Amino acid sequence: MNEADMRRSLPIGVFDSGLGGLTVAREIMRNLPMEKIVYFGDTARVPYGNKSPKTVQRYSRQIVRFLKTQEIKAIVVACNTASALALDEIREEAGGLPVIGVVEPGARAACEETKRGRIGVIATRATIASHVYSNAIHAIRPELSVIGKACPLFVPLVEEGWTHDKITDEIILRYLDEVLEYDIDALILGCTHYPLLRSEIRRLIGDEIRLVNPAYETANELKRLLRSEALENDSPRMPGEPYPYRFFVSDDAERFAGFANSVLPVDVKSARIVPIEEY
Amino acid sequence: MNEADMRRSLPIGVFDSGLGGLTVAREIMRNLPMEKIVYFGDTARVPYGNKSPKTVQRYSRQIVRFLKTQEIKAIVVACNTASALALDEIREEAGGLPVIGVVEPGARAACEETKRGRIGVIATRATIASHVYSNAIHAIRPELSVIGKACPLFVPLVEEGWTHDKITDEIILRYLDEVLEYDIDALILGCTHYPLLRSEIRRLIGDEIRLVNPAYETANELKRLLRSEALENDSPRMPGEPYPYRFFVSDDAERFAGFANSVLPVDVKSARIVPIEEY
Repeated sequence: MNEADMRRSLPIGVFDSGLGGLTVAREIMRNLPMEKIVYFGDTARVPYGNKSPKTVQRYSRQIVRFLKTQEIKAIVVACNTASALALDEIREEAGGLPVIGVVEPGARAACEETKRGRIGVIATRATIASHVYSNAIHAIRPELSVIGKACPLFVPLVEEGWTHDKITDEIILRYLDEVLEYDIDALILGCTHYPLLRSEIRRLIGDEIRLVNPAYETANELKRLLRSEALENDSPRMPGEPYPYRFFVSDDAERFAGFANSVLPVDVKSARIVPIEEY
Repeated sequence: MNEADMRRSLPIGVFDSGLGGLTVAREIMRNLPMEKIVYFGDTARVPYGNKSPKTVQRYSRQIVRFLKTQEIKAIVVACNTASALALDEIREEAGGLPVIGVVEPGARAACEETKRGRIGVIATRATIASHVYSNAIHAIRPELSVIGKACPLFVPLVEEGWTHDKITDEIILRYLDEVLEYDIDALILGCTHYPLLRSEIRRLIGDEIRLVNPAYETANELKRLLRSEALENDSPRMPGEPYPYRFFVSDDAERFAGFANSVLPVDVKSARIVPIEEY
Protein backbone atom coordinates (compact mmCIF):
# COMPACT_ATOMS: atom_id res chain seq x y z
CA MET A 1 0.00 0.00 0.00
CA ASN A 2 1.37 3.41 -0.87
CA GLU A 3 1.02 6.41 1.41
CA ALA A 4 -2.12 7.81 -0.23
CA ASP A 5 -3.86 4.41 -0.07
CA MET A 6 -2.80 4.09 3.55
CA ARG A 7 -4.22 7.49 4.40
CA ARG A 8 -7.52 6.73 2.63
CA SER A 9 -7.92 3.58 4.71
CA LEU A 10 -7.66 5.42 8.04
CA PRO A 11 -10.79 5.88 10.17
CA ILE A 12 -12.88 9.01 10.72
CA GLY A 13 -12.69 10.31 14.29
CA VAL A 14 -16.15 11.25 15.60
CA PHE A 15 -16.70 12.73 19.03
CA ASP A 16 -19.51 13.92 21.22
CA SER A 17 -20.12 14.87 24.83
CA GLY A 18 -21.81 11.52 25.32
CA LEU A 19 -24.34 9.29 23.61
CA GLY A 20 -26.11 11.70 21.27
CA GLY A 21 -23.32 11.81 18.68
CA LEU A 22 -24.19 8.26 17.79
CA THR A 23 -26.94 9.69 15.57
CA VAL A 24 -24.13 11.33 13.57
CA ALA A 25 -22.10 8.10 13.51
CA ARG A 26 -25.27 6.35 12.30
CA GLU A 27 -25.64 8.72 9.34
CA ILE A 28 -21.95 8.24 8.45
CA MET A 29 -22.41 4.46 8.58
CA ARG A 30 -25.45 4.72 6.28
CA ASN A 31 -24.01 7.22 3.84
CA LEU A 32 -20.35 6.13 3.83
CA PRO A 33 -20.50 2.40 4.51
CA MET A 34 -16.86 1.82 3.55
CA GLU A 35 -15.47 4.25 6.11
CA LYS A 36 -14.00 3.16 9.42
CA ILE A 37 -15.04 5.10 12.51
CA VAL A 38 -13.40 5.77 15.86
CA TYR A 39 -16.06 7.20 18.17
CA PHE A 40 -15.34 8.94 21.46
CA GLY A 41 -18.18 9.83 23.86
CA ASP A 42 -17.24 11.94 26.87
CA THR A 43 -19.72 10.16 29.14
CA ALA A 44 -17.82 11.13 32.32
CA ARG A 45 -18.33 14.82 31.67
CA VAL A 46 -21.65 14.83 29.81
CA PRO A 47 -23.54 17.12 29.30
CA TYR A 48 -21.54 19.95 27.72
CA GLY A 49 -24.73 21.96 27.26
CA ASN A 50 -24.53 23.73 30.63
CA LYS A 51 -20.75 24.22 30.72
CA SER A 52 -18.83 27.41 29.98
CA PRO A 53 -17.08 27.98 26.61
CA LYS A 54 -13.66 27.72 28.30
CA THR A 55 -14.47 24.32 29.78
CA VAL A 56 -15.93 22.99 26.53
CA GLN A 57 -12.83 24.18 24.67
CA ARG A 58 -10.48 22.46 27.13
CA TYR A 59 -12.45 19.20 26.99
CA SER A 60 -12.55 19.30 23.17
CA ARG A 61 -8.78 19.77 22.94
CA GLN A 62 -8.23 16.75 25.19
CA ILE A 63 -10.50 14.65 22.99
CA VAL A 64 -8.73 15.72 19.78
CA ARG A 65 -5.38 14.82 21.37
CA PHE A 66 -6.80 11.38 22.18
CA LEU A 67 -8.30 10.89 18.70
CA LYS A 68 -4.96 11.74 17.11
CA THR A 69 -3.39 8.77 18.94
CA GLN A 70 -5.81 6.59 16.92
CA GLU A 71 -4.42 7.56 13.49
CA ILE A 72 -7.47 9.15 11.91
CA LYS A 73 -7.86 11.01 8.61
CA ALA A 74 -10.56 13.52 9.59
CA ILE A 75 -12.53 14.70 12.63
CA VAL A 76 -16.30 15.07 12.88
CA VAL A 77 -17.46 17.13 15.86
CA ALA A 78 -20.82 15.47 16.45
CA CYS A 79 -21.52 17.61 19.51
CA ASN A 80 -23.52 20.78 18.82
CA THR A 81 -22.15 22.49 21.93
CA ALA A 82 -18.54 21.77 20.98
CA SER A 83 -19.23 22.78 17.35
CA ALA A 84 -20.78 25.96 18.72
CA LEU A 85 -18.14 26.89 21.25
CA ALA A 86 -14.87 25.18 20.33
CA LEU A 87 -14.47 24.71 16.58
CA ASP A 88 -11.46 27.06 16.29
CA GLU A 89 -9.68 25.34 19.19
CA ILE A 90 -10.43 21.92 17.70
CA ARG A 91 -9.03 22.96 14.29
CA GLU A 92 -5.90 24.33 15.97
CA GLU A 93 -5.41 21.13 17.98
CA ALA A 94 -6.14 18.95 14.93
CA GLY A 95 -3.12 20.32 13.07
CA GLY A 96 -3.66 19.66 9.37
CA LEU A 97 -6.56 17.20 9.74
CA PRO A 98 -9.86 18.25 8.16
CA VAL A 99 -12.51 19.06 10.78
CA ILE A 100 -16.29 19.19 10.27
CA GLY A 101 -18.74 20.39 12.89
CA VAL A 102 -22.48 19.66 12.80
CA VAL A 103 -23.58 23.29 12.91
CA GLU A 104 -22.55 24.58 9.51
CA PRO A 105 -24.00 21.71 7.44
CA GLY A 106 -27.26 22.06 9.39
CA ALA A 107 -27.37 25.82 8.91
CA ARG A 108 -26.64 25.52 5.18
CA ALA A 109 -29.40 22.95 4.66
CA ALA A 110 -31.91 25.17 6.47
CA CYS A 111 -30.94 28.11 4.25
CA GLU A 112 -31.55 26.00 1.18
CA GLU A 113 -34.87 24.58 2.39
CA THR A 114 -36.65 27.66 3.68
CA LYS A 115 -39.10 29.38 1.32
CA ARG A 116 -40.52 32.10 3.53
CA GLY A 117 -37.16 32.77 5.20
CA ARG A 118 -38.25 31.89 8.76
CA ILE A 119 -36.18 29.21 10.48
CA GLY A 120 -36.59 27.65 13.93
CA VAL A 121 -33.74 26.09 15.93
CA ILE A 122 -34.26 23.76 18.89
CA ALA A 123 -31.21 22.77 20.96
CA THR A 124 -29.65 22.74 24.44
CA ARG A 125 -29.46 25.91 26.54
CA ALA A 126 -25.79 26.47 25.66
CA THR A 127 -26.26 26.04 21.91
CA ILE A 128 -29.20 28.46 21.88
CA ALA A 129 -27.40 30.96 24.11
CA SER A 130 -24.36 30.85 21.82
CA HIS A 131 -26.51 31.90 18.80
CA VAL A 132 -24.25 29.67 16.76
CA TYR A 133 -26.99 28.50 14.37
CA SER A 134 -28.33 31.99 13.72
CA ASN A 135 -24.75 33.25 13.22
CA ALA A 136 -24.05 30.44 10.75
CA ILE A 137 -27.35 31.06 8.94
CA HIS A 138 -26.76 34.80 8.73
CA ALA A 139 -23.26 34.27 7.39
CA ILE A 140 -24.92 32.57 4.40
CA ARG A 141 -28.21 34.50 4.11
CA PRO A 142 -28.27 37.62 6.30
CA GLU A 143 -31.90 38.40 5.43
CA LEU A 144 -33.37 35.26 7.09
CA SER A 145 -35.22 35.29 10.43
CA VAL A 146 -34.19 32.73 13.05
CA ILE A 147 -35.93 31.84 16.31
CA GLY A 148 -34.14 29.63 18.84
CA LYS A 149 -35.68 27.63 21.66
CA ALA A 150 -33.87 25.60 24.33
CA CYS A 151 -35.52 22.25 25.09
CA PRO A 152 -33.57 20.84 28.08
CA LEU A 153 -36.03 18.01 28.73
CA PHE A 154 -35.64 16.33 25.34
CA VAL A 155 -32.30 14.64 26.14
CA PRO A 156 -33.45 12.99 29.39
CA LEU A 157 -36.74 11.96 27.71
CA VAL A 158 -34.81 10.22 24.92
CA GLU A 159 -32.39 8.62 27.36
CA GLU A 160 -35.36 7.44 29.45
CA GLY A 161 -36.64 5.74 26.29
CA TRP A 162 -39.94 7.67 26.39
CA THR A 163 -39.81 8.51 22.69
CA HIS A 164 -43.30 7.18 21.84
CA ASP A 165 -45.14 8.65 24.77
CA LYS A 166 -48.05 10.97 25.54
CA ILE A 167 -45.93 12.89 28.06
CA THR A 168 -43.22 13.46 25.46
CA ASP A 169 -45.86 14.66 22.99
CA GLU A 170 -47.04 17.24 25.54
CA ILE A 171 -43.50 18.43 26.23
CA ILE A 172 -42.73 18.68 22.50
CA LEU A 173 -45.87 20.79 22.00
CA ARG A 174 -45.04 22.98 25.01
CA TYR A 175 -41.56 23.73 23.70
CA LEU A 176 -42.53 24.09 20.06
CA ASP A 177 -45.61 26.25 20.64
CA GLU A 178 -43.56 29.43 20.77
CA VAL A 179 -41.48 28.43 17.75
CA LEU A 180 -44.54 27.57 15.67
CA GLU A 181 -46.21 30.91 16.44
CA TYR A 182 -43.25 32.41 14.66
CA ASP A 183 -44.58 30.87 11.43
CA ILE A 184 -41.37 29.02 10.54
CA ASP A 185 -41.06 26.77 7.50
CA ALA A 186 -37.83 24.98 8.50
CA LEU A 187 -36.83 23.59 11.90
CA ILE A 188 -33.27 22.59 12.77
CA LEU A 189 -32.93 19.67 15.21
CA GLY A 190 -29.92 21.34 16.82
CA CYS A 191 -29.01 18.66 19.37
CA THR A 192 -27.80 15.20 18.46
CA HIS A 193 -30.44 13.47 20.56
CA TYR A 194 -33.32 15.22 18.82
CA PRO A 195 -33.35 13.15 15.59
CA LEU A 196 -34.52 10.31 17.86
CA LEU A 197 -37.71 12.37 18.42
CA ARG A 198 -37.98 13.16 14.72
CA SER A 199 -41.09 11.13 13.92
CA GLU A 200 -42.96 12.48 16.99
CA ILE A 201 -42.04 16.05 16.07
CA ARG A 202 -43.10 15.42 12.47
CA ARG A 203 -46.46 14.00 13.56
CA LEU A 204 -47.13 16.90 15.95
CA ILE A 205 -46.13 19.80 13.72
CA GLY A 206 -47.50 18.46 10.42
CA ASP A 207 -45.90 18.14 6.99
CA GLU A 208 -45.52 21.80 6.06
CA ILE A 209 -42.35 22.46 8.02
CA ARG A 210 -39.11 20.99 6.71
CA LEU A 211 -37.16 19.23 9.49
CA VAL A 212 -33.40 19.67 9.16
CA ASN A 213 -31.28 16.95 10.72
CA PRO A 214 -27.69 18.24 11.02
CA ALA A 215 -26.45 14.66 11.52
CA TYR A 216 -27.66 13.72 8.05
CA GLU A 217 -26.29 16.93 6.50
CA THR A 218 -22.94 16.41 8.24
CA ALA A 219 -22.54 12.93 6.76
CA ASN A 220 -23.24 14.43 3.31
CA GLU A 221 -20.70 17.16 3.93
CA LEU A 222 -18.14 14.60 5.07
CA LYS A 223 -18.69 12.65 1.86
CA ARG A 224 -18.07 15.77 -0.26
CA LEU A 225 -14.97 16.62 1.76
CA LEU A 226 -13.44 13.14 1.52
CA ARG A 227 -14.16 13.10 -2.21
CA SER A 228 -12.64 16.53 -2.84
CA GLU A 229 -9.49 15.64 -0.89
CA ALA A 230 -9.25 12.15 -2.43
CA LEU A 231 -9.62 10.65 1.03
CA GLU A 232 -12.55 8.27 0.45
CA ASN A 233 -11.82 4.71 1.46
CA ASP A 234 -12.14 2.42 -1.53
CA SER A 235 -11.36 -0.99 -0.09
CA PRO A 236 -14.70 -2.62 0.68
CA ARG A 237 -15.26 -4.67 3.82
CA MET A 238 -14.95 -8.37 3.08
CA PRO A 239 -18.00 -10.55 3.82
CA GLY A 240 -17.69 -11.85 7.38
CA GLU A 241 -15.17 -9.20 8.32
CA PRO A 242 -16.14 -7.33 11.51
CA TYR A 243 -17.54 -3.82 11.18
CA PRO A 244 -14.63 -1.38 11.38
CA TYR A 245 -16.09 0.67 14.21
CA ARG A 246 -14.36 1.29 17.53
CA PHE A 247 -16.02 2.97 20.49
CA PHE A 248 -14.35 4.79 23.37
CA VAL A 249 -15.94 6.54 26.34
CA SER A 250 -14.67 8.30 29.44
CA ASP A 251 -17.08 6.45 31.76
CA ASP A 252 -19.86 3.87 32.08
CA ALA A 253 -19.08 1.75 29.03
CA GLU A 254 -21.99 -0.56 29.75
CA ARG A 255 -24.74 2.05 29.54
CA PHE A 256 -23.08 3.39 26.38
CA ALA A 257 -23.22 0.01 24.67
CA GLY A 258 -26.90 -0.37 25.58
CA PHE A 259 -27.81 2.99 24.07
CA ALA A 260 -25.55 2.43 21.04
CA ASN A 261 -27.37 -0.79 20.24
CA SER A 262 -30.69 1.04 20.24
CA VAL A 263 -29.39 3.69 17.82
CA LEU A 264 -26.86 2.06 15.47
CA PRO A 265 -27.48 -0.40 12.64
CA VAL A 266 -24.60 -2.60 13.90
CA ASP A 267 -24.11 -4.55 17.09
CA VAL A 268 -21.92 -2.79 19.65
CA LYS A 269 -20.40 -5.34 21.99
CA SER A 270 -18.39 -2.97 24.14
CA ALA A 271 -16.69 0.38 24.49
CA ARG A 272 -13.27 0.99 25.95
CA ILE A 273 -12.72 3.48 28.77
CA VAL A 274 -10.23 6.29 28.12
CA PRO A 275 -8.82 8.42 31.01
CA ILE A 276 -9.55 11.54 28.99
CA GLU A 277 -8.30 14.02 31.58
CA GLU A 278 -4.78 12.70 31.01
CA TYR A 279 -4.79 13.89 27.38
CA MET B 1 -10.07 33.64 71.25
CA ASN B 2 -8.71 30.30 72.46
CA GLU B 3 -8.29 27.34 70.14
CA ALA B 4 -11.63 25.72 70.99
CA ASP B 5 -13.52 28.99 70.38
CA MET B 6 -11.63 29.42 67.14
CA ARG B 7 -12.56 25.96 65.98
CA ARG B 8 -16.24 26.48 66.88
CA SER B 9 -16.34 29.61 64.75
CA LEU B 10 -15.13 27.83 61.59
CA PRO B 11 -17.59 27.17 58.75
CA ILE B 12 -19.26 23.91 57.73
CA GLY B 13 -18.13 22.65 54.34
CA VAL B 14 -21.08 21.50 52.22
CA PHE B 15 -20.67 20.01 48.78
CA ASP B 16 -22.77 18.66 45.98
CA SER B 17 -22.41 17.69 42.33
CA GLY B 18 -24.16 20.93 41.41
CA LEU B 19 -27.18 22.96 42.42
CA GLY B 20 -29.29 20.42 44.29
CA GLY B 21 -27.23 20.46 47.50
CA LEU B 22 -28.53 23.96 48.10
CA THR B 23 -31.64 22.32 49.59
CA VAL B 24 -29.30 20.84 52.23
CA ALA B 25 -27.56 24.21 52.77
CA ARG B 26 -31.05 25.73 53.15
CA GLU B 27 -31.97 23.31 55.95
CA ILE B 28 -28.66 24.04 57.72
CA MET B 29 -29.32 27.77 57.44
CA ARG B 30 -32.81 27.29 58.93
CA ASN B 31 -31.84 24.87 61.67
CA LEU B 32 -28.37 26.20 62.57
CA PRO B 33 -28.61 29.91 61.84
CA MET B 34 -25.36 30.73 63.67
CA GLU B 35 -23.22 28.44 61.53
CA LYS B 36 -21.07 29.66 58.68
CA ILE B 37 -21.18 27.67 55.44
CA VAL B 38 -18.73 27.14 52.59
CA TYR B 39 -20.64 25.56 49.72
CA PHE B 40 -19.02 23.92 46.72
CA GLY B 41 -21.13 22.86 43.71
CA ASP B 42 -19.34 20.83 41.04
CA THR B 43 -21.28 22.45 38.22
CA ALA B 44 -18.60 21.65 35.62
CA ARG B 45 -19.01 17.91 36.15
CA VAL B 46 -22.67 17.66 37.12
CA PRO B 47 -24.48 15.26 37.19
CA TYR B 48 -22.73 12.56 39.23
CA GLY B 49 -25.81 10.33 38.91
CA ASN B 50 -24.66 8.62 35.72
CA LYS B 51 -20.96 8.36 36.55
CA SER B 52 -19.06 5.31 37.76
CA PRO B 53 -18.15 4.85 41.46
CA LYS B 54 -14.47 5.35 40.67
CA THR B 55 -15.10 8.69 38.99
CA VAL B 56 -17.40 9.91 41.77
CA GLN B 57 -14.76 8.91 44.35
CA ARG B 58 -12.02 10.79 42.53
CA TYR B 59 -14.17 13.91 42.16
CA SER B 60 -15.19 13.78 45.83
CA ARG B 61 -11.57 13.55 46.99
CA GLN B 62 -10.70 16.63 44.92
CA ILE B 63 -13.57 18.56 46.48
CA VAL B 64 -12.58 17.58 50.03
CA ARG B 65 -9.02 18.72 49.31
CA PHE B 66 -10.41 22.06 48.14
CA LEU B 67 -12.76 22.44 51.15
CA LYS B 68 -9.85 21.78 53.52
CA THR B 69 -8.10 24.86 52.11
CA GLN B 70 -11.09 26.85 53.46
CA GLU B 71 -10.51 25.96 57.14
CA ILE B 72 -13.73 24.15 57.92
CA LYS B 73 -14.78 22.23 61.04
CA ALA B 74 -16.99 19.56 59.44
CA ILE B 75 -18.08 18.28 56.03
CA VAL B 76 -21.63 17.64 54.86
CA VAL B 77 -21.88 15.55 51.71
CA ALA B 78 -25.10 16.97 50.28
CA CYS B 79 -24.90 14.82 47.17
CA ASN B 80 -26.76 11.52 47.37
CA THR B 81 -24.57 9.93 44.71
CA ALA B 82 -21.35 10.88 46.51
CA SER B 83 -22.84 9.80 49.86
CA ALA B 84 -23.79 6.55 48.19
CA LEU B 85 -20.56 5.81 46.39
CA ALA B 86 -17.73 7.72 48.06
CA LEU B 87 -18.30 8.20 51.80
CA ASP B 88 -15.30 6.06 52.83
CA GLU B 89 -12.99 7.91 50.44
CA ILE B 90 -14.31 11.27 51.67
CA ARG B 91 -13.71 10.29 55.33
CA GLU B 92 -10.18 9.15 54.48
CA GLU B 93 -9.43 12.39 52.63
CA ALA B 94 -11.03 14.50 55.39
CA GLY B 95 -8.48 13.32 57.94
CA GLY B 96 -9.96 13.91 61.38
CA LEU B 97 -12.84 16.18 60.30
CA PRO B 98 -16.34 14.88 61.02
CA VAL B 99 -18.21 13.91 57.83
CA ILE B 100 -21.98 13.51 57.43
CA GLY B 101 -23.64 12.18 54.29
CA VAL B 102 -27.31 12.65 53.47
CA VAL B 103 -28.09 8.96 53.13
CA GLU B 104 -27.85 7.71 56.70
CA PRO B 105 -29.95 10.46 58.31
CA GLY B 106 -32.61 9.91 55.63
CA ALA B 107 -32.56 6.14 56.10
CA ARG B 108 -32.79 6.46 59.90
CA ALA B 109 -35.78 8.81 59.71
CA ALA B 110 -37.59 6.44 57.34
CA CYS B 111 -36.98 3.53 59.75
CA GLU B 112 -38.49 5.58 62.57
CA GLU B 113 -41.49 6.76 60.57
CA THR B 114 -42.68 3.58 58.89
CA LYS B 115 -45.51 1.67 60.61
CA ARG B 116 -46.13 -1.13 58.14
CA GLY B 117 -42.44 -1.54 57.34
CA ARG B 118 -42.68 -0.69 53.63
CA ILE B 119 -40.44 2.13 52.44
CA GLY B 120 -40.11 3.70 48.98
CA VAL B 121 -36.97 5.47 47.73
CA ILE B 122 -36.91 7.78 44.71
CA ALA B 123 -33.53 9.00 43.44
CA THR B 124 -31.16 9.16 40.46
CA ARG B 125 -30.24 6.05 38.50
CA ALA B 126 -26.87 5.72 40.26
CA THR B 127 -28.27 6.09 43.78
CA ILE B 128 -30.95 3.48 43.10
CA ALA B 129 -28.49 1.11 41.40
CA SER B 130 -26.12 1.41 44.37
CA HIS B 131 -28.86 0.19 46.78
CA VAL B 132 -27.35 2.57 49.30
CA TYR B 133 -30.67 3.52 50.93
CA SER B 134 -31.86 -0.05 51.26
CA ASN B 135 -28.46 -1.06 52.64
CA ALA B 136 -28.57 1.77 55.18
CA ILE B 137 -32.17 0.89 56.12
CA HIS B 138 -31.38 -2.82 56.49
CA ALA B 139 -28.37 -2.04 58.66
CA ILE B 140 -30.83 -0.48 61.12
CA ARG B 141 -33.93 -2.66 60.63
CA PRO B 142 -33.23 -5.74 58.50
CA GLU B 143 -36.91 -6.77 58.46
CA LEU B 144 -38.14 -3.74 56.47
CA SER B 145 -39.10 -3.85 52.77
CA VAL B 146 -37.64 -1.22 50.46
CA ILE B 147 -38.60 -0.41 46.88
CA GLY B 148 -36.39 1.92 44.84
CA LYS B 149 -37.33 3.86 41.71
CA ALA B 150 -35.05 6.02 39.55
CA CYS B 151 -36.71 9.26 38.37
CA PRO B 152 -34.18 10.82 35.94
CA LEU B 153 -36.62 13.48 34.68
CA PHE B 154 -37.17 15.16 38.06
CA VAL B 155 -33.87 17.08 38.08
CA PRO B 156 -34.31 18.68 34.63
CA LEU B 157 -37.97 19.46 35.44
CA VAL B 158 -36.92 21.31 38.61
CA GLU B 159 -34.09 23.10 36.81
CA GLU B 160 -36.54 24.09 34.06
CA GLY B 161 -38.68 25.66 36.79
CA TRP B 162 -41.71 23.51 35.90
CA THR B 163 -42.44 22.63 39.51
CA HIS B 164 -46.11 23.70 39.49
CA ASP B 165 -47.07 22.13 36.20
CA LYS B 166 -49.51 19.61 34.76
CA ILE B 167 -46.70 17.87 32.86
CA THR B 168 -44.67 17.48 36.05
CA ASP B 169 -47.76 16.06 37.81
CA GLU B 170 -48.09 13.44 35.06
CA ILE B 171 -44.42 12.51 35.29
CA ILE B 172 -44.58 12.28 39.09
CA LEU B 173 -47.58 9.94 38.83
CA ARG B 174 -45.88 7.86 36.13
CA TYR B 175 -42.79 7.34 38.25
CA LEU B 176 -44.61 6.87 41.56
CA ASP B 177 -47.29 4.51 40.26
CA GLU B 178 -45.05 1.48 40.67
CA VAL B 179 -43.84 2.61 44.10
CA LEU B 180 -47.38 3.23 45.36
CA GLU B 181 -48.57 -0.21 44.23
CA TYR B 182 -46.04 -1.53 46.68
CA ASP B 183 -48.22 -0.11 49.48
CA ILE B 184 -45.46 1.96 51.10
CA ASP B 185 -46.07 4.21 54.10
CA ALA B 186 -42.82 6.22 53.91
CA LEU B 187 -41.12 7.70 50.87
CA ILE B 188 -37.53 8.98 50.88
CA LEU B 189 -36.81 11.92 48.56
CA GLY B 190 -33.38 10.48 47.76
CA CYS B 191 -32.07 13.24 45.48
CA THR B 192 -31.37 16.78 46.64
CA HIS B 193 -33.54 18.35 43.93
CA TYR B 194 -36.61 16.37 44.94
CA PRO B 195 -37.58 18.42 48.03
CA LEU B 196 -38.36 21.18 45.52
CA LEU B 197 -41.15 18.89 44.22
CA ARG B 198 -42.27 18.05 47.76
CA SER B 199 -45.62 19.87 47.75
CA GLU B 200 -46.58 18.40 44.32
CA ILE B 201 -45.67 14.90 45.46
CA ARG B 202 -47.61 15.41 48.70
CA ARG B 203 -50.70 16.59 46.80
CA LEU B 204 -50.56 13.69 44.34
CA ILE B 205 -49.93 10.83 46.77
CA GLY B 206 -52.15 12.04 49.64
CA ASP B 207 -51.48 12.44 53.34
CA GLU B 208 -51.07 8.82 54.36
CA ILE B 209 -47.50 8.39 53.25
CA ARG B 210 -44.78 10.08 55.31
CA LEU B 211 -42.33 12.00 53.07
CA VAL B 212 -38.75 11.82 54.32
CA ASN B 213 -36.51 14.73 53.31
CA PRO B 214 -32.87 13.69 53.90
CA ALA B 215 -31.80 17.35 53.68
CA TYR B 216 -33.91 18.17 56.75
CA GLU B 217 -32.72 15.07 58.62
CA THR B 218 -29.10 15.82 57.75
CA ALA B 219 -29.32 19.31 59.25
CA ASN B 220 -30.74 17.72 62.44
CA GLU B 221 -27.94 15.18 62.48
CA LEU B 222 -25.36 17.92 61.97
CA LYS B 223 -26.83 19.82 64.95
CA ARG B 224 -26.52 16.72 67.17
CA LEU B 225 -22.97 16.09 65.98
CA LEU B 226 -21.78 19.67 66.56
CA ARG B 227 -23.38 19.63 69.99
CA SER B 228 -21.83 16.32 71.01
CA GLU B 229 -18.39 17.43 69.87
CA ALA B 230 -18.76 20.92 71.40
CA LEU B 231 -18.38 22.41 67.94
CA GLU B 232 -21.53 24.58 67.79
CA ASN B 233 -20.81 28.19 66.94
CA ASP B 234 -22.02 30.42 69.76
CA SER B 235 -21.14 33.90 68.53
CA PRO B 236 -24.29 35.28 66.92
CA ARG B 237 -24.22 37.30 63.73
CA MET B 238 -24.34 41.01 64.50
CA PRO B 239 -27.25 43.00 63.00
CA GLY B 240 -26.18 44.34 59.64
CA GLU B 241 -23.31 41.87 59.36
CA PRO B 242 -23.36 39.98 56.03
CA TYR B 243 -24.55 36.39 56.04
CA PRO B 244 -21.53 34.15 56.59
CA TYR B 245 -22.09 32.04 53.49
CA ARG B 246 -19.56 31.58 50.72
CA PHE B 247 -20.30 29.81 47.44
CA PHE B 248 -17.88 28.13 45.07
CA VAL B 249 -18.56 26.31 41.82
CA SER B 250 -16.46 24.67 39.15
CA ASP B 251 -18.33 26.37 36.28
CA ASP B 252 -21.15 28.73 35.28
CA ALA B 253 -21.29 30.88 38.41
CA GLU B 254 -24.09 32.99 36.97
CA ARG B 255 -26.60 30.19 36.52
CA PHE B 256 -25.69 28.93 40.00
CA ALA B 257 -26.48 32.29 41.61
CA GLY B 258 -29.84 32.43 39.82
CA PHE B 259 -30.86 29.01 41.08
CA ALA B 260 -29.45 29.69 44.57
CA ASN B 261 -31.62 32.77 44.88
CA SER B 262 -34.72 30.73 44.06
CA VAL B 263 -33.88 28.13 46.75
CA LEU B 264 -32.12 29.92 49.64
CA PRO B 265 -33.57 32.31 52.23
CA VAL B 266 -30.64 34.70 51.68
CA ASP B 267 -29.51 36.71 48.71
CA VAL B 268 -26.63 35.14 46.77
CA LYS B 269 -24.76 37.80 44.83
CA SER B 270 -22.13 35.60 43.27
CA ALA B 271 -20.17 32.37 43.38
CA ARG B 272 -16.46 32.03 42.82
CA ILE B 273 -15.07 29.59 40.24
CA VAL B 274 -12.63 26.95 41.49
CA PRO B 275 -10.42 24.96 39.05
CA ILE B 276 -11.41 21.77 40.87
CA GLU B 277 -9.40 19.40 38.68
CA GLU B 278 -6.23 20.96 40.08
CA TYR B 279 -7.03 19.74 43.62
